[in-house]
Parts: sequence; C-alpha cells; structure tokens
Amino acid sequence: MRSLIRLFAVSAMALAVGGALAQNNPVDEKWWPSELGANDEMGGAGYITPEKRIAAAKLVKKGKMALLGMPYSNAMPLIPGRTFALSIPGAPTHGPLNWPGDSYDQTFMDELVTAEIGQVGTQWDGLGHPMIRITGVPGWKDGNYFYNGVRLEDVETARGLKKMGTEKAGGFFTRGILIDLPALKGVKMLPKAYAITMADYRAALQKQGIKDAEQGDVVLIRTGWNSWWKTSHLGRPVGEKVKTDEQMAKDHAEFGSGEPGPAAEVCDHLGAKKISMVGSDTWGLEPLDFSKGMPESFAYCHMNLVVRRGISNFENLDLDDLSADKAYEFLFAWAPLKLVGATGSPGNPVAAW
Amino acid sequence: MRSLIRLFAVSAMALAVGGALAQNNPVDEKWWPSELGANDEMGGAGYITPEKRIAAAKLVKKGKMALLGMPYSNAMPLIPGRTFALSIPGAPTHGPLNWPGDSYDQTFMDELVTAEIGQVGTQWDGLGHPMIRITGVPGWKDGNYFYNGVRLEDVETARGLKKMGTEKAGGFFTRGILIDLPALKGVKMLPKAYAITMADYRAALQKQGIKDAEQGDVVLIRTGWNSWWKTSHLGRPVGEKVKTDEQMAKDHAEFGSGEPGPAAEVCDHLGAKKISMVGSDTWGLEPLDFSKGMPESFAYCHMNLVVRRGISNFENLDLDDLSADKAYEFLFAWAPLKLVGATGSPGNPVAAW
Amino acid sequence: MRSLIRLFAVSAMALAVGGALAQNNPVDEKWWPSELGANDEMGGAGYITPEKRIAAAKLVKKGKMALLGMPYSNAMPLIPGRTFALSIPGAPTHGPLNWPGDSYDQTFMDELVTAEIGQVGTQWDGLGHPMIRITGVPGWKDGNYFYNGVRLEDVETARGLKKMGTEKAGGFFTRGILIDLPALKGVKMLPKAYAITMADYRAALQKQGIKDAEQGDVVLIRTGWNSWWKTSHLGRPVGEKVKTDEQMAKDHAEFGSGEPGPAAEVCDHLGAKKISMVGSDTWGLEPLDFSKGMPESFAYCHMNLVVRRGISNFENLDLDDLSADKAYEFLFAWAPLKLVGATGSPGNPVAAW
Amino acid sequence: MRSLIRLFAVSAMALAVGGALAQNNPVDEKWWPSELGANDEMGGAGYITPEKRIAAAKLVKKGKMALLGMPYSNAMPLIPGRTFALSIPGAPTHGPLNWPGDSYDQTFMDELVTAEIGQVGTQWDGLGHPMIRITGVPGWKDGNYFYNGVRLEDVETARGLKKMGTEKAGGFFTRGILIDLPALKGVKMLPKAYAITMADYRAALQKQGIKDAEQGDVVLIRTGWNSWWKTSHLGRPVGEKVKTDEQMAKDHAEFGSGEPGPAAEVCDHLGAKKISMVGSDTWGLEPLDFSKGMPESFAYCHMNLVVRRGISNFENLDLDDLSADKAYEFLFAWAPLKLVGATGSPGNPVAAW
Repeated sequence: MRSLIRLFAVSAMALAVGGALAQNNPVDEKWWPSELGANDEMGGAGYITPEKRIAAAKLVKKGKMALLGMPYSNAMPLIPGRTFALSIPGAPTHGPLNWPGDSYDQTFMDELVTAEIGQVGTQWDGLGHPMIRITGVPGWKDGNYFYNGVRLEDVETARGLKKMGTEKAGGFFTRGILIDLPALKGVKMLPKAYAITMADYRAALQKQGIKDAEQGDVVLIRTGWNSWWKTSHLGRPVGEKVKTDEQMAKDHAEFGSGEPGPAAEVCDHLGAKKISMVGSDTWGLEPLDFSKGMPESFAYCHMNLVVRRGISNFENLDLDDLSADKAYEFLFAWAPLKLVGATGSPGNPVAAW
Repeated sequence: MRSLIRLFAVSAMALAVGGALAQNNPVDEKWWPSELGANDEMGGAGYITPEKRIAAAKLVKKGKMALLGMPYSNAMPLIPGRTFALSIPGAPTHGPLNWPGDSYDQTFMDELVTAEIGQVGTQWDGLGHPMIRITGVPGWKDGNYFYNGVRLEDVETARGLKKMGTEKAGGFFTRGILIDLPALKGVKMLPKAYAITMADYRAALQKQGIKDAEQGDVVLIRTGWNSWWKTSHLGRPVGEKVKTDEQMAKDHAEFGSGEPGPAAEVCDHLGAKKISMVGSDTWGLEPLDFSKGMPESFAYCHMNLVVRRGISNFENLDLDDLSADKAYEFLFAWAPLKLVGATGSPGNPVAAW
Repeated sequence: MRSLIRLFAVSAMALAVGGALAQNNPVDEKWWPSELGANDEMGGAGYITPEKRIAAAKLVKKGKMALLGMPYSNAMPLIPGRTFALSIPGAPTHGPLNWPGDSYDQTFMDELVTAEIGQVGTQWDGLGHPMIRITGVPGWKDGNYFYNGVRLEDVETARGLKKMGTEKAGGFFTRGILIDLPALKGVKMLPKAYAITMADYRAALQKQGIKDAEQGDVVLIRTGWNSWWKTSHLGRPVGEKVKTDEQMAKDHAEFGSGEPGPAAEVCDHLGAKKISMVGSDTWGLEPLDFSKGMPESFAYCHMNLVVRRGISNFENLDLDDLSADKAYEFLFAWAPLKLVGATGSPGNPVAAW
Repeated sequence: MRSLIRLFAVSAMALAVGGALAQNNPVDEKWWPSELGANDEMGGAGYITPEKRIAAAKLVKKGKMALLGMPYSNAMPLIPGRTFALSIPGAPTHGPLNWPGDSYDQTFMDELVTAEIGQVGTQWDGLGHPMIRITGVPGWKDGNYFYNGVRLEDVETARGLKKMGTEKAGGFFTRGILIDLPALKGVKMLPKAYAITMADYRAALQKQGIKDAEQGDVVLIRTGWNSWWKTSHLGRPVGEKVKTDEQMAKDHAEFGSGEPGPAAEVCDHLGAKKISMVGSDTWGLEPLDFSKGMPESFAYCHMNLVVRRGISNFENLDLDDLSADKAYEFLFAWAPLKLVGATGSPGNPVAAW
C-alpha cells in the first residue's frame, strides 16, 4: 500500500517538476512529498549548491551594486485592510548615559512599527503564505494546505506557525537574472493584465544575451508597473510631497487595480527549471485586471510555484537600477528575516555585478 | 570667518579619523563635516568602492554561506520597555480565490508584527540611533546631535526622521572579517564587562591568519556572550520549550546585565581604518557590568564610531557558524530595510566564503 | 511684580471665562492659571459638584439608556495617516486548562489592537491633545502650549506625557443635554461647514423645552453629519457589506471633507457657562469645508474650550438614539481610560433618562 | 425531534440557571440555548430592566463618585506574552493650523497604542473570551464553544469574531454591590488561593448591611490582592519611580503567581441570582496558586458564569475608594467599547452613591 502511494507520489512529482500539470487540479495531482524531502520547510533555497554560489560570486565583475528594496513609508500603497504605522517617539528612548564633563551625554532614538511586516511594500512570500483550500473531497481532510502538504489547521498558533515559518527558509546567494519586458517592448510599463508569454520570455533572454534560468537561480521579472508608486513621495511625511494627495490616491488605486505578470506557461517553465525564487516589480506577480473579475485558476503562479514546489516569490521589488545598467545577470544575495512562524519577510536584497 | 571654521573642522577631522581623540570631548573636538561630505547621510557604506566589491566577491571560494541573524520570537530577550509582538490572524487573510472545480481555492495567511523593529533582536543601528546631547555650551544650540551635526530637534517628525533614516544608508557588499575571541582564549564566552584590547585584537588576527581591517571592511567581533539566549527556545510558543521559564528568565537577565566588548582603543583603531561597519554577538557592543554602574565615557564606541564617523553598528549577530568553520574572511552582503526615517533595521546578513 | 502678573492673569481670566475673548490672541491674552487652579490637570470635570451629581441622577425617570459610542472597526473612516488594526489570533491564546474528564477543557481568545487609540472613531480629546504653538514672541519661550500653560517640550517622553495625561481627567457624572439641530431644522443633516449660531442654539433649547447649559454640564451637539459613515458596514470584515467599497470610500471621503459645527459664539457661550465637556457627532467639532481652505482662527473651539479653559471635547458620538427618543436632558456617566500620559481616550458613554 | 431537543435544553437550563450543576460536565449538561434567547449575544446586560435602572439611579444620595479603572502604563504587570506599548510621537501629529497673527497656530498630539487592549490591565471579559473546548465526544462537533453554543471555528475571522464581539454586549447601568473581604477579615489582602465561601459572602453582606445580589446587579469582589501592583509607579516612565525595578518585578511576579477568589459555590449562587456581571480586583477572578498546579475544574467561574450563562467578568478593578468610603451599594454605569468582533474591552467604570 505504502509503495503504491509512493509510486503515485513520484509520478505526480514527475508531472509537477518536469512539466505543466495536466489539469492543474490539486486534488488529483498530489503535490507532495516535495522533491526536496517530505519534511522540507526550506523550499527553493535548497536548490542552491556550493558550486552555484561560487559561480554566482564570479558574476561580480564591475563592482556595481543595486539594492532592490523600495522605501517603506506611509506613502506606500497597501492592500486594503493592511497596516503600516511607523512612529518616532517623542523623546530619546534611552540615555542620557554618563560621559565625562557636564555638558554632554549620550542618548538614543528608536522607532515603533506596526505592520503585516512580511506582506507590505517590498515583501517576500514565504511558504507559510499561500495555501490551497480543499473542501469536501473524499480521502482528504478539509483544510488549507501549504507546501509539502502541511495543513494550516495543524500548525497554527496565536503567535506563529509551527511549520513553514520564514526562519526555515535559508538564504539566497545565487545567480540572479532580469527579464526586462519594458526594455524588450520599448514601453514604460506593460499594460494591466498583460500575460507575459514564453515567446516574450525567450525574446527577452535573446535580446539581453543571457542564458535561460537554471537550477537555483533567482528570476526577476520587470514590468515597469511599480512606476505608479515609485513616483509617489515615499518619504512623506518626512520629506516633501511630489504629488497631490488626490493624484497619489489615484495612482495607488490604479497600481492596485490589476497588474501584468507571467502567464501560466512561464511559471511552469520556471518551476520545471527548479529555480529558487521568482520576483517582480508588481504587488502580486499574477496578470490580473480586477475590473474584469478573477481569472480562472487564479493565482496560478502562487499555487504552482510556491505551494506545489516551494519556490518562493518576492514582490514589489525595485528593478530599475538593474535595467538602467543592463545588469541582466548578477549575484543575488539575501535572506529573509528569521521571524519565527511568520508567513513572509520584508527585504532590501543586494544585487552585485 | 567661514574659512576659520573650516580650518578648525578639518583639523578636528584629522584627529577624528586619524587617531584617538585627545580628550574625547564632543564640544571642543567638533566632529563634522564628515570626511564623506558635509551632507552625507550614508556613513560607512560610502567607504566601499567598486574595487572593494570585486575583491570581496573573490573571497567566495568554498561556496559556503552563513546567515548571521538570530530568530525573532517572543522568546528573545528585550531591552526593558521594548516590544516584540507577532500575531498570526485567526483565519486566512485573503481568498478564497477562484479555481476551476468545486473543491479547491487559493487562500493566504499574513502576520501582524509590532516592535521597535530596528532595535530588537538582531538589529542594525543606523545613524539616526545614537546622539550626543549638548546642553549649556556657549556657541552651541542645545540639542541631541547625530552624525554630521544634524540635530534631532531639527529633523524629528511623528512619522520618521527627516534625515539619517535607514533608507539613506546604502548597502554593505564588502570584505567581512571575524575577530573570534573565544577561539583565541579557549573559552566558551568572554566574561561580563571584559574589554577587548588591541593586544587581543592583534593576537586574534595573527592566530586566524588574516590581515587587519581595511577601508570599507565589516568587522565582526565574536564574544560568545549570546549563548545566554541562543540556547533559549527561540521558536516558542511555536516550538517546544528547551528551558523552564524560570531558567530562561534567569539567562536573559544575565545576558542583559552586562556584556564584554571592544575597549576604546579598538574602536579608535577601527575608526581610523575607516571600516564601514562594526558588529558583534552582544546586545550593545560596549563592555559593561550594570551592577558596577556606568563606566566613564559610556558608550564610547557608539559615540566615536557611529555619531562621529558614521560607521554603523550591528548587534545581536549570530557568529557561531563562521567560527565553527573558521571562516575568518568572507564576503559580507546585506542592506538595511529602507524604513523611511527610521533609526535602525532588523536583518539576517549573508556571509559567503 | 508677582502681584502684577497675578492681576493680569486674573483680568485675562475674567475675559476668558466671562465672555468672548476680545482679540482671541493667545499671546496678549494669557489664559492661565486656570480658574480650576494653576496646577490643575483635570479640567472641566472639576466643575462637577456632588450636588450636581445628585441632581443628574434624578434625571433617570424612564429607566432608558443609550450608548453613545460608535463601533470600532476596519470600516471606520480615519484621519489620513491614522491606524486601526484589530487582529484576532490564529488559535486560542490561553489554555487548555484542566477540567475533570477527558473531553473538555477551558480555552481563551484575545485580540491585538494597534491604533491611535485616543484619536480614532468615537474619541475624547484630553487636555494633552490640542496645543497653541507660540514662536518668536518676546517674553515667551517658543513651544507648544497645553491648558494651564504647560509646554509639550517640558513634559514629553517617549512613553507618555508627564502632565495632562488622560489618567488625570477624572470622570463625568453629570447632567447631559442634547442640542438637536436636524430636529430643529427638519433636515437629515446640517450642510457641510454650517456654523451653528447662538440663535440656532437658543431655538433648539426652546423647541426642546430644556434649560440652557449650566456649570458642569455635558453639552452634546447633534448635526446628523455622521450618517455618512453610520450607514457603512461597520462590522466588516466580520459582518456583511452594506455598501460597495467604492460607495463607502466616497461616503467616507465626503464625511472627512468638512463638517458642520458650532460657531465661535456658541463655544464662547458654553465656555462662559463652565460646562465640563462638549461633544458632537462629527469628527472634529469645528465648522469647516476643506475645499474652501482653512477658515481664520481655526480651530476656534479646540483652542478656546480645551486649551484655554480645560473643557474637553468628545468626537464621533452617536446621538441618534437620544434624538429618536427626544431625550434632551439625561444623566451622562463616563470616564476616559486612565492611559498614563495619553492625549485622548476611546469611549462608549452611557446616557440614561 | 425538535421538541425533544427543546425539552432537553429546557431541563438543562433549569439545572444551569436554578442551581449548581450536578457534575459540571459541559457535555452531558448542555448549556444552551440561553435563557436570554437562543441567538442572544448580549449576555448578562439583558437582565437589567428599566425598573432596575430607575432604582439604581436612586442609590446616588451623597453625590460621590469613584472611578474603578487602574492606570494603563508600561509599569502594569502583564500576563506573559501580552503587550502594552504606548508611544508618544516625536512631534505634533497635526497642524499647525491657521490662526490670525504670525506668532501662534494650533497643533495636536496623538498617541499610538498596541495592546491586547481587551485583555490587559483593567479589562472586561466579553462573551468572546472564554470557551469550552470539546474533543472526541459523540454527537458533538469538535471545537471551542462560546456562550450559547457558538463555536470559535464557525465565527473566527482574521479581523474579528463574527459573533460575541463586545459591540453586542450592551451597557451596564444598574445596582452595584461591593463584597469587601479584607474589611470583613481585618486584613490588608486575602492570602493567595484563598477560596471565598458562601459563609464569607453572607458574613460580608451582613456586616455591610446590604441585601444579597439580585437580578441584573453587578457584584464586585474586593480581595486587596491588587495592592501588589497598585503600589507600583504606574506612571513610569512618565512619573517618578516609587520602587526599584527589582522590587517591582518581584511584586508583579507575586501578583501573577496566583490570587484569591470566589469558590465555586459563590459563582453558582451569583449565577442563580442572574446577576449581569461579576468583577474583582484580581487579574483572573479564580482562586489559584500556580506553584500548586492547576486545580480541578479550573477556571470554574469563567466556565459557569461567562460561558454557560453569559454573565461577564471584569478584572483588575480598583475597589479601594469604594471600600474606604464604605460604599457597599451604588449605581454602576459603564459600557464596553464597541470593538467589533473583539473578546474584551478596557474600561474605567463609574460608580456613584
């Protein structure tokens, strides 16, 4: 019996990692145990080998660096219902400390932040973020299933998930590649809901003169979509306003009303290549126009990359410096915060070339 | 008049960056404009050149990696009055989303975190954290002075500092070195309040077979002191307890009751070398035993590295993997979160060798 | 010299509490010491005598009660930049506790809330909320002045104000009266920016058959303006939606775009009567239309009631049940939360008649 | 079938509200539908009639008032894992607003609070707080059951409970009585784990010259136990310290290590009387000494008053002013904050006599 299950699992894996899923039906095509191990909670970082790291470090030829995080501020667009509240206290929070002499001491300032810290602004979706909810299927326990078949209902506590927390995710020190669609198409940004095809993907690789994604790579997809909010006064209220409040509200609404993103075939391709992470300059990766309703099989890439294969997803990255320098291949170095039991992490990844 | 001030400032800089400060008196020895520019808000990362980055990448020879962040959890010791509250919501926070078929959908989980996010657990002190408070000195405006002479009173808002925020700090992609004192001394940890001398520092360099700190380096000082809390059940309440609550409270109290750290002469040496950042496995860098009261000139390294020179400081790092592998020289790759107007950042830096 | 200052202060007080302020100039017409004492931090509750309480209790004739708080939820309109985040944890936060038998235990749920808790939804402005900022006036120290001449700069700490915190404010057990303008005018709500005149005020008193405000009273001004958000699905996401998101956003924007409120002469009248508190069903008490810019002397009632006289101000009350029952005179019983050093308090006051 | 269930329910109710529960077994002695209605979410406030309110108001004879809330501050003892973080922003949060003249404007301060706001300090347990967890009982759906048989699993959302939120709880305007045990026994406080008996209860009533609890009453039990923290510097860091940090930590630990409280028979008596609320000056109502382990049937009063009968429970009240004035019978006027979907509420109830 056990061997039969195993056989089934292995053949499902073959489907899952070797190509597109026939029906993309999470019930008939069981997606675990993961190729990385039945108890794996790390996911895609496990595809990165020492050899890969050595090769990635060799990509640093010019000594250039870009930081891929956007600023976190009250002028960020937020998914409705989410919170970002940074408060500077009304006086130094520590000190004054001893110092010889009467006229000087040492003092310190803090800040207090409340946020869905792994899910606002530039943010990395860990394996504890997306789930497939199964209900009423014979032989399956109802529930919300993470990567490797872990059910939310079995691991949830008030203070963190018992499994799949970001502290298990390891680090990403590997080759990164940029797929620069606006450069390919000669536009400022892709239109809303535009689904990037394999043809687009291959054309971009060719134009950019880089090789396809390989095992362990981080693949970053630039759409230009974040220019809706990169142009906001992200430092407000600290800095000066650069748009009216009305314009900013409008731009942020447009930003959130949909986005371009990779078609299912691109995510299937990247999954089959066993990349370690996908990323983009959009809020949610998937091509979508809310005004036209949810597409079928939404959100395809979250489900097939993150949930089924453990390949995590970085959102709201700033990929413009890479694009400007035509840095299409680079060392990507970053690890999520070890927030015990958390579903995601903020970040400011380092790219060097 | 202006040139006279300039002359004074330059000669003060000579003192400040070329050697120990004679009296360490922030009033008589004015510490700005910074060598990095009168308007500089980046600090030490500005010492890292493209050549330095290229050289640093070449340190990756074995393809090994360590993550230097400690887990963030309710079982962390906190400076009294600080907060870390991570809460997992009571139900999926988004979804269910469309999926073909009746039995499965996609759902998502978030977490809500409230913390002095830049000042709890593994945390990086930005240039907006430590200040020198000047009061009643003729010719000086009373106030709390940051790096480059910026006064808190001039840049404080309710929602972030107008200057010196972590979004200005740039990134650290450079050579890192480990100064491993427990390995040098053959102990598990340095005793409380132990002041690491230049003799210790040089002995460690020699034993480890590495060269002294150079411009732009990140210098990480291992004391073993964090074993007081590395041994706590950092995953609680998510994971299992590994100590009784009483034992954990006792260990955390001992951890917070003081710490070993570099003597003033070591910080002066590192400052003169123009490193980009100092770091340690302690909560506050400075040698101290609270039961014996505050030492004079406390906190010397914060004042002389961070405030006067813009060389930032990373606390509560986990340096044990580096030590175990004798990885004394490595690529250090990390950037603080761009928290607009914030005083510090959490982190999980990547070291590769 | 001292007696001269005293004389000046007393004559200023005479102006301040006996009638309108001639020029309404906080610099020339010094507003402290308060009639309630130079060190008073309680303000208007100090006007309520034991006799007043006995008389107020006698207003309870029908045994009816109304609760004057609005629901706090994610569907509240918020002043931009403010936060209300209530999160229910993902599992019982305490327990299970022992119980005889195998099959049952006791468990407990919490909630985690982050908010400017004294300044969102139904909220009471304490004496630590509004200030008069004085700059560059000879003989005055620059700064933000609260009631009784206390400067923010002298009492601010990171964790609370040293003076004027809500824990000092006492409690309000006194006669409440309703001034029901929509009932008077035969409208659903007063128009935006409508300034309620003394003629309106006296007409309402007469129509309602109640006597004018007396010392210690709580005076509640109904405008109907809160119907812009009373009709929102305040229970969302807990309950059902009753408006589209678009309609709700539009209604909340209209609600926040201005409001009707008492003209200066009404606030001067109430101040001269030495009431203990004013309240309304608007977000900020003062007549205003943002699209027309800030009126001169804004915000008159905050400055003249709260800052100058210590008469506090309750915002976003629900006065509809009182109106529906024609309960124009009632016992008002409520005290702010003793939030040490805080500027305001949430509330759900009890009115009984 | 339906009538049979109804019969069973009614006879169970007879047990539940008319006397002690035979076995106190929540599975065999089904506790719903509530006498207040099968869909009731208000609980005990539903026992208060208009006549009761009129009578209660007549208890105000001297015109005296006490506020029963303790101060909320960083110097409160907290259940481990809970948070109270109040932060005052670093600058006025609103303004400056227009004012005629060059030298003065109006400005405003806020505070930002993060807390399990319904479960820290003085706090009222709503019907969404305690649950009976049932597992593996034939005929019962596994889960955590609130009052009236509502299962957590059926009403939980990320942002609030769909049922039993504090916004449903109504208000308490009724007769309050004080049961003053330290006055009865001639001690400062009852010893830890002391179980107050019916004999104690009746002796207190007699000594105090008041009648037993009646339907709709609020019954407040004074033990003196909160003197462990009433004597802490509750205003810290705003005010002065009155204990060393060590002493405060010790006192708070002792406070939290157990408490005196009513024996089961007292709670059964109060339940049978159909009071509207019970309250005490302890953190958790129930007699307990943690060092001796959890007693059987813990926590009896939470389970039998709150869960089974909908009679809510107010903790950490300050009852000393009532005691000092021998105010044993008074008007109790208070309503919880309408926090949509929340489990509890902070408070500062008004007692008048």
